[in-house]
Amino acid sequence: MSFKLLHKDKSSKARLGLLNTAHGKVHTPCFVPVGTQATIKALSNDEMKECGTEMIMANAYHLYLRPGEKVLKKAGGLHKFMAWDGPIMTDSGGYQIFSLAVLRKVRKEGVEFKSHIDGSKHFMTPEHIIGFQKILGSDIMMPLDECLHYPVSRNNVEESLKITFDWAKRSKKARATKQMLFGIVQGSTYLDLRKRAVEEIVGLDFDGYAIGGVAVGEPQDLIHEVTEYTASALPQNKARYLMGVGTPLDMLDAISEGADLFDCVVPTRNGRNGQAFTWSGELQLRNAPFKEDFAPVDKKCACYTCRNHTRAYIRHLFNTDEILGLRLVSLHNICFYVKLIETSRKAIKEDRFKKFVKDFKVRYRNR
Amino acid sequence: MSFKLLHKDKSSKARLGLLNTAHGKVHTPCFVPVGTQATIKALSNDEMKECGTEMIMANAYHLYLRPGEKVLKKAGGLHKFMAWDGPIMTDSGGYQIFSLAVLRKVRKEGVEFKSHIDGSKHFMTPEHIIGFQKILGSDIMMPLDECLHYPVSRNNVEESLKITFDWAKRSKKARATKQMLFGIVQGSTYLDLRKRAVEEIVGLDFDGYAIGGVAVGEPQDLIHEVTEYTASALPQNKARYLMGVGTPLDMLDAISEGADLFDCVVPTRNGRNGQAFTWSGELQLRNAPFKEDFAPVDKKCACYTCRNHTRAYIRHLFNTDEILGLRLVSLHNICFYVKLIETSRKAIKEDRFKKFVKDFKVRYRNR
Repeated sequence: MSFKLLHKDKSSKARLGLLNTAHGKVHTPCFVPVGTQATIKALSNDEMKECGTEMIMANAYHLYLRPGEKVLKKAGGLHKFMAWDGPIMTDSGGYQIFSLAVLRKVRKEGVEFKSHIDGSKHFMTPEHIIGFQKILGSDIMMPLDECLHYPVSRNNVEESLKITFDWAKRSKKARATKQMLFGIVQGSTYLDLRKRAVEEIVGLDFDGYAIGGVAVGEPQDLIHEVTEYTASALPQNKARYLMGVGTPLDMLDAISEGADLFDCVVPTRNGRNGQAFTWSGELQLRNAPFKEDFAPVDKKCACYTCRNHTRAYIRHLFNTDEILGLRLVSLHNICFYVKLIETSRKAIKEDRFKKFVKDFKVRYRNR
Repeated sequence: MSFKLLHKDKSSKARLGLLNTAHGKVHTPCFVPVGTQATIKALSNDEMKECGTEMIMANAYHLYLRPGEKVLKKAGGLHKFMAWDGPIMTDSGGYQIFSLAVLRKVRKEGVEFKSHIDGSKHFMTPEHIIGFQKILGSDIMMPLDECLHYPVSRNNVEESLKITFDWAKRSKKARATKQMLFGIVQGSTYLDLRKRAVEEIVGLDFDGYAIGGVAVGEPQDLIHEVTEYTASALPQNKARYLMGVGTPLDMLDAISEGADLFDCVVPTRNGRNGQAFTWSGELQLRNAPFKEDFAPVDKKCACYTCRNHTRAYIRHLFNTDEILGLRLVSLHNICFYVKLIETSRKAIKEDRFKKFVKDFKVRYRNR
């Protein structure tokens, strides 16, 4: 299990790589669809495969609460439980504990919180979360970390980084399997703290590195500054995972800035609301202008939705609250994201990624 | 376009037939999944095809309201609109006008009602409903009729039959296409009125006959009495469609009583609530006993759901409100219904349908 850097684009900081996991190869840059609760919302595994999805993301916090450790253990791990035989990354749930759970208390040993579902009390240590991800059998595990929202004082960030670093050390020690484990770099928008965090976390020598605490409320220019700065500070020979990003444009920018992996709920969440991403921009298919529009969602797309159905039909399905509508748009969006990344990889290989992004943006925004 | 009676079971009144429609052959007995609003709820056309579905049902009342005549005309009919290239039956919407619409007034010319969606006023004549089904391009059209709920006085039934007969005559006259048109036999639970209705409707010579007004609140024994009596009174050389039936057991009984076609929302509606139909009975997959049950929904089933997923996983999906759960159970249920009918056809061919039903019931009820 390793990461191999294959090529660096000459027109940007974009990289081409290959990640070898226990369940197969992942070509980077890679978009990793989010299956929080052991399912990519509204879609089947076969549909994900047909779209070209190489790896999916699940969430340890959610799976710990439901179906729980016992069921997942008896199932023989997450791959078997959900019948997905490709690579799986799991988030530690740190972010969810800090955004969803209630009454949480961070102590040195771990974090105490109440479930957002039934109010039950839990105490999670970094060791426990690694242990749970061993049960899951994730190909890439993430350690427990503290993710702060923006804005936050320098002092708070410094205190928080100490905890995240301590938890990273303990997570590494608890590992003891061949599953990959990434280190997470926090530090909010303080570049010198990001630098210090990179040094500390890289000093522990993880299998890859995640850039956390980005796109948590800060303005766009700060997102780019922090991403580019942190990515550049990370070692070349390890995969870089930018957590929770984003829209098609966010993702292209992050690739330009040197990130390799991206997970985001946007294609499925927005898909369930009727928003489709296309090569010529975003469409809200619920809208009246699509009532008699018998073109496919995207003429350039070869997905099941675009091969078979029209905008008018999908608009009708949303208008009548039919589940097939959100299925078809979620499916199209995932396929679009995967295809966008595939096309990006080709552009990187040919050292023309900067121009590719520029051309894409013109078409995408001119709608 | 025609119906050919191929074989009569020697152990019951079950029949084997072949219905030729403009969009392909339909082997009877046939279960016809319901796609009220131009979609089988939560499922894709490809999934329906893979299950072996030969014909689907749509609803003229619903489609008249949304997306409406104009959109369907511009789309080039319902097959193109929903991208289903197999046979489609459409219900006239008579039943929906009498169960969903508000403030309806039945006059000799037609029926006035307010839409259950937005309260808009509509006046529908039998001619208009045939005209709309011509726009839809249905392979089998149904005329406007009046469907009375149980119980209802003999006097009311007699008055109502006059209207239904008049509308049937006018529908036949308005037809003027090669689409098949079925006549609907009403008459509530009054067998002599059913007999009179059969004589009148058959006298008009339709392409097939529907038994309406069954399973509208009357007890089980009356359902069977009326179905068997009415089916027996209908001509042998035409298909018999029992409207809105039913559970697997209802369907097998109706086949024994000589009915050929069945449409029902049960497999998808119950599927969306976690109820699965299997060769050994019904399962409520939301229930706790399935939490750690890693068997497929039905070991005897070869559908996508049973090939890939466990009861425990599906129970988790329902428990976490994930759409994939209701997709998987709806899909399994449709496949089960289709397979049950395929197996029934084999038993009829081999003159052992009575025993087949008896054996099936033992396994099904012993759970």
